[in-house]
Amino acid sequence: MNAPDLRLPVDVPSTALFTDHYELTMLQAALRAGTAGRRSVFEVFTRRLPEGRRYGVVAGTGRVLDAVENFRFDEGVLGFLRERGIVDEPTLAWLSEYRFSGDIWGYPEGEVYFPGSPILRVEGTFAECVLLETVILSILNHDSAIAAAASRMSSAAGDRPLIEMGARRTHELAAVAASRAAYVGGFTSTSDLAAGFRYGIPTVGTSAHAFTLLHDTERDAFQAQVATLGTGTTLLVDTYDVAEAVRTAVEIAGPELGAVRIDSGDLLLVAHRVRQQLDELGAKNTRIVVTSDLDEYAIASLRAAPVDAYGVGTQLVTGSGHPTCSMVYKLVARADSDAPTAPLVPVAKKATGGKTSIGGRKWAARRLDEYGVAEAEVVGTGPVPDGLRDQQLLVELVKAGDVVAREPLDVVRDRHVEARARLPLSATQLSRGEPVIPTEYCV
Amino acid sequence: MNAPDLRLPVDVPSTALFTDHYELTMLQAALRAGTAGRRSVFEVFTRRLPEGRRYGVVAGTGRVLDAVENFRFDEGVLGFLRERGIVDEPTLAWLSEYRFSGDIWGYPEGEVYFPGSPILRVEGTFAECVLLETVILSILNHDSAIAAAASRMSSAAGDRPLIEMGARRTHELAAVAASRAAYVGGFTSTSDLAAGFRYGIPTVGTSAHAFTLLHDTERDAFQAQVATLGTGTTLLVDTYDVAEAVRTAVEIAGPELGAVRIDSGDLLLVAHRVRQQLDELGAKNTRIVVTSDLDEYAIASLRAAPVDAYGVGTQLVTGSGHPTCSMVYKLVARADSDAPTAPLVPVAKKATGGKTSIGGRKWAARRLDEYGVAEAEVVGTGPVPDGLRDQQLLVELVKAGDVVAREPLDVVRDRHVEARARLPLSATQLSRGEPVIPTEYCV
Repeated sequence: MNAPDLRLPVDVPSTALFTDHYELTMLQAALRAGTAGRRSVFEVFTRRLPEGRRYGVVAGTGRVLDAVENFRFDEGVLGFLRERGIVDEPTLAWLSEYRFSGDIWGYPEGEVYFPGSPILRVEGTFAECVLLETVILSILNHDSAIAAAASRMSSAAGDRPLIEMGARRTHELAAVAASRAAYVGGFTSTSDLAAGFRYGIPTVGTSAHAFTLLHDTERDAFQAQVATLGTGTTLLVDTYDVAEAVRTAVEIAGPELGAVRIDSGDLLLVAHRVRQQLDELGAKNTRIVVTSDLDEYAIASLRAAPVDAYGVGTQLVTGSGHPTCSMVYKLVARADSDAPTAPLVPVAKKATGGKTSIGGRKWAARRLDEYGVAEAEVVGTGPVPDGLRDQQLLVELVKAGDVVAREPLDVVRDRHVEARARLPLSATQLSRGEPVIPTEYCV
Repeated sequence: MNAPDLRLPVDVPSTALFTDHYELTMLQAALRAGTAGRRSVFEVFTRRLPEGRRYGVVAGTGRVLDAVENFRFDEGVLGFLRERGIVDEPTLAWLSEYRFSGDIWGYPEGEVYFPGSPILRVEGTFAECVLLETVILSILNHDSAIAAAASRMSSAAGDRPLIEMGARRTHELAAVAASRAAYVGGFTSTSDLAAGFRYGIPTVGTSAHAFTLLHDTERDAFQAQVATLGTGTTLLVDTYDVAEAVRTAVEIAGPELGAVRIDSGDLLLVAHRVRQQLDELGAKNTRIVVTSDLDEYAIASLRAAPVDAYGVGTQLVTGSGHPTCSMVYKLVARADSDAPTAPLVPVAKKATGGKTSIGGRKWAARRLDEYGVAEAEVVGTGPVPDGLRDQQLLVELVKAGDVVAREPLDVVRDRHVEARARLPLSATQLSRGEPVIPTEYCV
């Protein structure tokens, strides 16, 4: 069964309206002025990492490729733009034919990034590129924020599995993207069925407090659950009295009981007590899953506790304090006529106020030290120095409008583990700090 | 043109998979145990407001009603659940017939809420109600967080219009819901075309720095924009030198120039200078729009500045520090058999750890003082005291599965303004504090 063949609850027929109004008015003005066809280079980058963070994680690239492919103005959309008078008829005619025909290069998904890293580079006519700004930024800003939090949590969790369970804490479709980004950042599974459906991420879950409360006794509830889900299931033991629940659970499921879940209280203390009790009851292989308001710090603080898996909700889907990145999509170069051979001129905003950027189409490379550890992010506009040619970061994603770099999510996930492992060790310390490697400009 | 007739980029064919895996395993276990048909009452409430906030804003109710109506398991979804072995065949058969047939009452959308307010009450069999948990919480937790931030910003802005422009800072579909919630909380318009399409919210926008940089000179860019958008357009004046840009803008558009936009720098200072310059150039009616990393505090600090409108992005769509609410969906009462006449038994989690709740189906009323100002949120499970009968907050939203309370977004928006106006004045102070009225329990 192929997900795209189904009536997916997460696919959308067109992404063209995930767009700020001004992209279309700029298009109209440029069409009329004869400047819309100027070859242009837009780059996505961030001026800074969220405060205290040591590295960023590129996530959402795969979704960007889908969004670019589905960026079409059909009759319904054009009718809306016409009725509201958002753009004029020549612009509507142009939009009705829209199909991105340019090139996109970018950091491969799962890579790490730093301030100034040109994470995505979109090249084509001004008109075709400018329209993609909003949806590209929406996806990268959201997904990368979640992946960065996930990466910190997975560092803190070490080999213990992490379950994403934040669907109820964020927009229902943001939740699906968050599951995907969490998986990229090192999570193991998700509670979100739509994420399982859309992206093939393993889904897990057994029961909530409501299930225990539905039944006349906790014993009835445990029996009902084990009867149908088997002894390998996870029983939730903190509805009434934890010690009594653990006793009942092992009595009903036997020592083969798969796991118990603790969702409240002092997790460190309760986990130790429950482990001891399980061992005394002979349930030495029964695992302990904890799930109460965890973040990367709580996960780290439970490192010495007898915990076998973590379920993370709110703090994951809200980026653990940083729910968005500050990526921007800036015109960095453009031709001075629409002749296909016109040379590119670097451009950049000049006014004061901290929002300046560096003009010119960029390359990027990660310089490694003699031990293979990253020591600088090097970003340049001129020729690539010989020693950095093999460390270049941008890869071709879209060629003349065709997506050329789709890849399975597991490849992305593995890439992130490798990229993070090549950073200086302090990258995975949770303490606040500067970006773990500096960005050097070679312009 | 009716939005639902179009191939909307924001409607989804089914909401059934916006659901945590455990809702379905609980269903399977309850079906097998013969407890799935017990009449049950679930309530949505929050144990606390985000730190420092004085009131919450109910938003998303209209979207919840859509989600409940579209919660159906079609062949594609059932095939996925079967292939992954998530539930057994009897459960799949049950799901294939699923249609919510119960009742939903709730606070009307736009109302304010406090800790313990029973914002939504869902009543039916355990099976039909438990499945709705995840999608209901996703919507209310997200939308209410955005509306609360919007409400604070609109208090701070007073009569000046607020433009929502955060699409690029959040998930592309969360952005559409965020525009809707912002409108409920008092925003005037949005940059997000999909929000205009789906919800009829006015959309606005003219140009970005890229448009100026595309052209050989700022003058060329301004001329191109005015040529097609007219002199009433908004020109962005901070790409190079603000004073020079303002001079060029008025030269090209004349004193009828609609507005100038400032997107960087010291907004207070720049707005004063630009106002003076515009006045000197005779452009006394040209408005000033500011749009640089604003939040409610920045908006308040610009109250004395000659600013005519604010554009808000990041801080709006991330809930100004609180991107989610902590609403939960709890079983508070259920029958002890599936006989339709079986009486409801109040239930509640008992274990320690701060996650306890009050059992029993609740009513809620807002007690007013002699001046008509709210003085307490009263929540009870017994009979409603005579003096509070007319101040009850819950209204019927779904009756025996049918939505009975759809309403235009403008009605919701007006309701919020009225509800906020009835709170003690300190509600709209931006300083941190406790909930502006206490919650009293009458159990």
